[in-house]
Amino acid sequence: MATEALLRRFTQALGPAHVLTGGDTAPWARDWTGAYQGEPAAVLRPADTAQVSAVLAIAHEAGTPIVPAGGRTGLTGATHAPGAVVLSLDRLSRIREIRREGRVAVVEAGVVLSHLHEAAEAEDLSFPLTLGARGSATIGGLLSTNAGGPNVLRHGNARDLCLGIEAVMADGRVCDLMGALHKDNSGYHLRDLLIGAEGTLGVITAATLKLAPRPRAHATAMVALPALPPALRVLNAVQDATGGAVEAFELMPRSYIEAWAAHTGGRRPFEGDWPVTIMIEVATTSDVDAAPGPQGQSPLAERLETVLAALLEDGTLGDAVIAQNEAQRAEIWARREAAAEVTFARRPFVDTDVALPLDLVADYLERIGPALQAIDPGVGELVVAHLGDGNIHYTAYPTRDDAALKDALREAIDALATRMGGSFSAEHGVGLSKRASMARHKDPAALAAMHGIKAALDPKGILNPGKVLP
Amino acid sequence: MATEALLRRFTQALGPAHVLTGGDTAPWARDWTGAYQGEPAAVLRPADTAQVSAVLAIAHEAGTPIVPAGGRTGLTGATHAPGAVVLSLDRLSRIREIRREGRVAVVEAGVVLSHLHEAAEAEDLSFPLTLGARGSATIGGLLSTNAGGPNVLRHGNARDLCLGIEAVMADGRVCDLMGALHKDNSGYHLRDLLIGAEGTLGVITAATLKLAPRPRAHATAMVALPALPPALRVLNAVQDATGGAVEAFELMPRSYIEAWAAHTGGRRPFEGDWPVTIMIEVATTSDVDAAPGPQGQSPLAERLETVLAALLEDGTLGDAVIAQNEAQRAEIWARREAAAEVTFARRPFVDTDVALPLDLVADYLERIGPALQAIDPGVGELVVAHLGDGNIHYTAYPTRDDAALKDALREAIDALATRMGGSFSAEHGVGLSKRASMARHKDPAALAAMHGIKAALDPKGILNPGKVLP
Repeated sequence: MATEALLRRFTQALGPAHVLTGGDTAPWARDWTGAYQGEPAAVLRPADTAQVSAVLAIAHEAGTPIVPAGGRTGLTGATHAPGAVVLSLDRLSRIREIRREGRVAVVEAGVVLSHLHEAAEAEDLSFPLTLGARGSATIGGLLSTNAGGPNVLRHGNARDLCLGIEAVMADGRVCDLMGALHKDNSGYHLRDLLIGAEGTLGVITAATLKLAPRPRAHATAMVALPALPPALRVLNAVQDATGGAVEAFELMPRSYIEAWAAHTGGRRPFEGDWPVTIMIEVATTSDVDAAPGPQGQSPLAERLETVLAALLEDGTLGDAVIAQNEAQRAEIWARREAAAEVTFARRPFVDTDVALPLDLVADYLERIGPALQAIDPGVGELVVAHLGDGNIHYTAYPTRDDAALKDALREAIDALATRMGGSFSAEHGVGLSKRASMARHKDPAALAAMHGIKAALDPKGILNPGKVLP
Repeated sequence: MATEALLRRFTQALGPAHVLTGGDTAPWARDWTGAYQGEPAAVLRPADTAQVSAVLAIAHEAGTPIVPAGGRTGLTGATHAPGAVVLSLDRLSRIREIRREGRVAVVEAGVVLSHLHEAAEAEDLSFPLTLGARGSATIGGLLSTNAGGPNVLRHGNARDLCLGIEAVMADGRVCDLMGALHKDNSGYHLRDLLIGAEGTLGVITAATLKLAPRPRAHATAMVALPALPPALRVLNAVQDATGGAVEAFELMPRSYIEAWAAHTGGRRPFEGDWPVTIMIEVATTSDVDAAPGPQGQSPLAERLETVLAALLEDGTLGDAVIAQNEAQRAEIWARREAAAEVTFARRPFVDTDVALPLDLVADYLERIGPALQAIDPGVGELVVAHLGDGNIHYTAYPTRDDAALKDALREAIDALATRMGGSFSAEHGVGLSKRASMARHKDPAALAAMHGIKAALDPKGILNPGKVLP
């Protein structure tokens, strides 16, 4: 609990308007899923890196826990802070610079993802990371959780899009690793260590990010398959035919389409009742590939059509449709982007985020259903997956709202993934909700190394304590 | 110094044939540049991960330093081990598995890069990392130094091509992070920490690597420019026109072409005397882009020709030539791949490996020459650069072989790079030769964090002591 004296010191550092207590902390008192609720003791809103440094120096001296927070759109409770001091990065919201020729953006941690999207587009560039929460999620949070989303397949996750970071360490020292460098082998890779550490090793205050050329054209398809195993062949065929242009390869099997149609009343993608449907999007930055031909189709779309036609011909695909205009493309994306809404509309739920080797996804999905039925006969399932990355969002709907049952289902989902060489957290991180899985499934030597690193970089354990490590 | 008792224990663990002493250690007594020489006390050649673990458990108990070694083609003295115990990974040379559909290779640390290239090609795939030393460099060494090379621009460096590793920690514990996963947010990113740590935090014994589809066609050009600043515009234009197909963008300015022609007697790329020449290679995995048209040219080559023609037309380029066949392509590559030979043919030399933000490379190269002339009037220079990555191999030829002078030149090269937001080590790592630069130029908070991590993971300091950290 923050004492009065401590709050006075924070107030001296930040000014009274930026140290919130009582009812003013309400926006930080629950996450957006509603799963984590609890009022913080105080919310600190520093204006810049120097103030973040001042806050941590004070906290370090006093041994006071600090919970860093960005847009709080995470799904694992990593910013849950009942009775604790929250360090909100929301006022560090400047896009410091966009370098058009160098194709980098220098941004502060509190910049909202959609603002960066707009700023990059204004320079005819793009920041390729995107996800449903883009209107709230901030760069600091996206980096701290190493966020993913549908475009990881082509552009990588947050870590891959980051060239440099600035971070404040536990004792308030500022670590400047902001170089806009594509290569840097000068010592241990602290950047990648702080990215994805969920604020437990340091507080990211700014970043140098890679920008990509803005795509000149997209081609978007829905395809239907009689079964999942040939899906990887479809991905490889489309990748090879388009020279690696696949930006999204999203599995929406029957369980998802049914739930989505029931929830939204929307139109199913195909007349036939296919067990497997997949959204495929390819994109090009080449004007030649983007230029519409006499039939109004771009060479990119023609290539997609040619390879899908061949896959229909040989029986790999049961059906396929290519969006003919932006409205049809938007309809396909809307079906996929409703996933969080559709998933959480039914309760109680156990939502997960496992990763599998690409060539074992189908096998996993065949085995996990029966494994859960053995625990809870009648359990429901909903699957949606970033299939090109081997990332499955598997949601189980237990037949009763029972904590032990939910834990048993989660454990079965995570355990099977781990046994098959997978991970219990693909892109959401660990936070609070997956600490038990860390204890159960992470390699013991790796866990020991992580504890050693935590103790070395945050010896008083003040940074987001109780998160990530079991 | 290894005692007799210790050697007996190593011999018990590995068998007498695999503990080398005296003259048998000769191959490990010098690096290939000849800059680092000194006989090890012993060379241990374990057969597998369990034996590596046994060796480290013994060394940890005894507090004996261990210097891990791969193909020893590094340029910074990272495997220099006079009087020390070398742990050679050369017998861990199995390619355990190549998964064609999943596009991954599971290999041991001692696998030679060119062997992996061949094995991937046999499955119609490729492992894109390549460099001059590919016939000797091993996967363990390439990962431990986070090696680069000309194809980093498109495919990333060793770290980017690695999905998982197995490593033996200082106390002999085996850390299994071998998942073939494209996403994994389960705790701190130990993989990226161990990669590039030059064997000071753990010994990498195996890796799961990404494979790419085998390119169906290349198009390779040499272009000449009246000056360097527009080069970034050329890169961006070719990237955009080809949808990001640039695999190599290699600067060979006049200083290099002159030295190369003098050394090899080879043919200059252009009749005219251009200050800047650049090799550009694009590649495609698409059969459509690769298929030769009526004129025998692939669509890929046509695109390259179109964009280069436009850049000639607007005066950005002074001249350009596209290889018309494999022999011409090989000639272009041979000119670039002679870089190490040409560089080290003249002595004394100060070879460096700096990285700059892409949009500051030209500025750096304009400023560094005069800065060095001020220190050593008459100093020679040779520049070759992975320009698409901002990675310059700048070699200075001092007018006399004087250690203090060489150090002053190196310091000036590194200091200017660092002042401009660059790095003193782009792809070669730190080893011994850049420890002074680490002390002078690395962010102090970052250095403190690195020392903390080293102490946490290797509390007795037995892993490659004296390397990387100042």
